[in-house]
Amino acid sequence: MPKPAKHVFVCAQSRPPGHPRGSCGQLGCAAVLQTFAQQFEQGQLHGRFALTSTGCLGACDYGPTVLIYPEGVMYTQVKPEDVSEIVAEHLHKGTPVERLLAPAALWS
Amino acid sequence: MPKPAKHVFVCAQSRPPGHPRGSCGQLGCAAVLQTFAQQFEQGQLHGRFALTSTGCLGACDYGPTVLIYPEGVMYTQVKPEDVSEIVAEHLHKGTPVERLLAPAALWS
Repeated sequence: MPKPAKHVFVCAQSRPPGHPRGSCGQLGCAAVLQTFAQQFEQGQLHGRFALTSTGCLGACDYGPTVLIYPEGVMYTQVKPEDVSEIVAEHLHKGTPVERLLAPAALWS
Repeated sequence: MPKPAKHVFVCAQSRPPGHPRGSCGQLGCAAVLQTFAQQFEQGQLHGRFALTSTGCLGACDYGPTVLIYPEGVMYTQVKPEDVSEIVAEHLHKGTPVERLLAPAALWS
């Protein structure tokens, strides 16, 4: 595949209920990943952009977590209904979605 | 965590034996990921660099696959004994390891 202009990584880490670290899985990352996958299909984004699930990205209390390279922009507490905005603004226009950016203490 | 200077993604996708796409799992990615993890621990690389496992990176016939951002450099057919060179040359010196680069038809 061609090297993508932007590569979207979505944390898909799950841990058992009650685990002290929690996880993006418990916080609903599967629906976020699925929504990205649907929008990649519908918008024929594969090729220009890439979408990959990951293990733990380290922001377990602030999941679901999405990380976009090459910029290295991390989004936290992403909901399925936020995905359209990330696709439209960040992927297509190159403008990060400020309101979803990870706290500076987590990623800066 | 601080935003890493370089983020190493290692494909950890497995598929059942005989699956037509094969997988990095069948090609030994677990040992590659473990070797990176050991070298991150031993070299105290966490913080400066990050290491994350991923789902399929798309180069299933050429696994194990390693992808490093922000450069977007993909390595294919990586063996555990290659990991030291990637860490020393690419992570510490910023010089990609030419002999392990993905074929241009796969990633360019």
